[in-house]
Amino acid sequence: MREEAKKSFYTTTSLQDVIQALSKISIKRKIEKISINEALGRVLAEDFFSPIDVPHFQRAARDGYAVRASDTFGAEEEEAKILRILGEIKAGEKSNLHVEEGGCVKIATGAPIPEGADAVVMVEYTEEEDDQVRIYRPVSPEENVVKIGRDIRKEQKILSKGTVLSIQDLGVISATGVTEVNVYSKPLVTVASTGNEIITPGSKLEYGKIYDINSVTITQAVKQSGGSPIYRGIIPDDKEELIKSIKYSLVNADIAIFSGGTSKGPGDTVPTALSEVSKPDFLIHGISIKPGKPTAVAAYNGKPVFMLPGYPTSALMVYYTLVDPQIRRWAGLPPTSRPQVKAVTGKRIYSERGRLNFQPVRLQLEKEKLVAYPVPTGSEAITTLALSQGYIEIGSEVQFIEEGEEVKVYLFRAPP
Amino acid sequence: MREEAKKSFYTTTSLQDVIQALSKISIKRKIEKISINEALGRVLAEDFFSPIDVPHFQRAARDGYAVRASDTFGAEEEEAKILRILGEIKAGEKSNLHVEEGGCVKIATGAPIPEGADAVVMVEYTEEEDDQVRIYRPVSPEENVVKIGRDIRKEQKILSKGTVLSIQDLGVISATGVTEVNVYSKPLVTVASTGNEIITPGSKLEYGKIYDINSVTITQAVKQSGGSPIYRGIIPDDKEELIKSIKYSLVNADIAIFSGGTSKGPGDTVPTALSEVSKPDFLIHGISIKPGKPTAVAAYNGKPVFMLPGYPTSALMVYYTLVDPQIRRWAGLPPTSRPQVKAVTGKRIYSERGRLNFQPVRLQLEKEKLVAYPVPTGSEAITTLALSQGYIEIGSEVQFIEEGEEVKVYLFRAPP
Repeated sequence: MREEAKKSFYTTTSLQDVIQALSKISIKRKIEKISINEALGRVLAEDFFSPIDVPHFQRAARDGYAVRASDTFGAEEEEAKILRILGEIKAGEKSNLHVEEGGCVKIATGAPIPEGADAVVMVEYTEEEDDQVRIYRPVSPEENVVKIGRDIRKEQKILSKGTVLSIQDLGVISATGVTEVNVYSKPLVTVASTGNEIITPGSKLEYGKIYDINSVTITQAVKQSGGSPIYRGIIPDDKEELIKSIKYSLVNADIAIFSGGTSKGPGDTVPTALSEVSKPDFLIHGISIKPGKPTAVAAYNGKPVFMLPGYPTSALMVYYTLVDPQIRRWAGLPPTSRPQVKAVTGKRIYSERGRLNFQPVRLQLEKEKLVAYPVPTGSEAITTLALSQGYIEIGSEVQFIEEGEEVKVYLFRAPP
Repeated sequence: MREEAKKSFYTTTSLQDVIQALSKISIKRKIEKISINEALGRVLAEDFFSPIDVPHFQRAARDGYAVRASDTFGAEEEEAKILRILGEIKAGEKSNLHVEEGGCVKIATGAPIPEGADAVVMVEYTEEEDDQVRIYRPVSPEENVVKIGRDIRKEQKILSKGTVLSIQDLGVISATGVTEVNVYSKPLVTVASTGNEIITPGSKLEYGKIYDINSVTITQAVKQSGGSPIYRGIIPDDKEELIKSIKYSLVNADIAIFSGGTSKGPGDTVPTALSEVSKPDFLIHGISIKPGKPTAVAAYNGKPVFMLPGYPTSALMVYYTLVDPQIRRWAGLPPTSRPQVKAVTGKRIYSERGRLNFQPVRLQLEKEKLVAYPVPTGSEAITTLALSQGYIEIGSEVQFIEEGEEVKVYLFRAPP
């Protein structure tokens, strides 16, 4: 019997070392100007300063009468001050009215305070009679007046570079009248599947072929990570074709993702192709994680290339572990904060020592307890993919987790 | 003094009653066929059945040799069975090879099992010599063979109507070769601001005018809720214009959202306009929530119309409370499950009795404790909007929450 086949078919690198190598890549982010209507969730590429004062004119904070505050001093319920109404200003109106001593202007919330006036008496404390108004309470200067720039001052820094723009942030930007912002461009990420047996969904199903799954799942995952996916189709199991495709990505994209056909054994095609593209910054083949041992990662001139396993569940798990953080970093986004829940294991879960295990699990509510069952990853079964709601991390020194033990589950989606 | 002004300017309806009225609207959902590449997060409008068996041919689960299992019976390390290699089948290849007694075919993972063979011996337990292979371990029939339809059977129901499509679900659909799915159409939602003082961001800032904020925030919020926003611009404070705009929405959209200019006092424009559009299914003006008391809600022939307050923070809070659940229901989506955190109040928070209070709060990390400070809503200040990270609910019977009390904060976004 071939003894060497029983051994690991190559030395593996720890996940930490792979992440370390990737972190040394210095990212050259591009910047683009986009409409605020498209900017939700995008990352501000520069500090945002307001070009105007908000409000940019003195506004009435209440419906009432714009007055000279001194004219109201001493007003009481029993001893009203009487002012002459010079006119009326509605919101949005510009007026040339000037408030002299003993005069006032009827005013609506949001309307500009007329010249001469320095306060607003709320309508609740007045009574109108023909062209006069009785004032029952005094106001002090600036009362019920919103001063220029009280909310936002011109040239004030409102949002910092690196802000992930929320709905509220976009509201504040709109308040300054600005309609476009400079954000980081989404990294361009090519996505391709390899394998002679893989065909595109929608094409005719021939004997011996199977439909491509990874292109669909990885493309959608790239979008969720904040990248802009470029679908590159299916590449035959051929070193030269692979090299050609990698070279295309290095010219036209920032990051390249391939996933192997399930047919790919412990062959040398991938590492050989990777070493022949050009001189890599680094080249790692074999990572001590499960699933994902045959994963290869390289970088050329600061552009990473990922070769994921072919099995759909494995490919997606390795994507989340390795690729998602890189795309987010490239996009200027913070790491994914995956929601977590506590669950108990529904059966004993075995793990392989020496490999960090990301075990996808299916969650089930049993007697008001969330129970986690392991879902197999190293199989071509596709339905297992849809069954898993999250995963648990099992350290490389752990051999198994006992049934009924409490575990932390990182969720792909909301729990049942 | 005008006594009536001190009183509430109209009777209010409880939030529960408003929700009750809205829940009685029977929704007529539309269905559309879209590409799976656009279907992430969309809602399946029908059960999904697989049109094919997956796999649709018998596949090798391992690299090795396709054999007649009976030919390997009795094989041992010391007493190998020797089989003649008839040829090789790679993944994706169709072959006419037929395995007779004493013969075998070299096979790759994923390749179709040739006729006559019923099992695969893993390469690890073999040794090749010229055109023969030595088999050191027996296999039983079906070993290392993936049977037709083992993963998915033809006509099997894989996903249920109402499923919010995840990346994993799209992967499973791709496995069946299907590229388009029937999903519920996103509800069409018109968004407009009203107010003579409101102008569109990007236009020239004139004295007395302010830039529109609500159109931007509400439009983005509609997208997040799963609706398709239709921006309808700014409508002057005029009953006839408002009626015209509501009528447009009732013809061209499913749901209409307006937000009032800040100038809008306790006027009758909104309820009058709403009652004059046509006979409403119901018409509510004034809701016992804070913020949002002046909110009006009506429905015509099953289409809801929302009139939100003008202040940006109030408008967005009422949107989340009242409108978001309706849009999601219309879209077939489950209610928003807003992430929650526990915090302690940083100061005493007053609430108005008789009104359910949704108090936006700013969160701050103080001595490793999350502290919640109230953010004012009843003000034209825009920056307060960007400052709040979530809100707390204060029951209508509560007058205040003491400083240092523990509260549950519903988050708009991730905590600091």
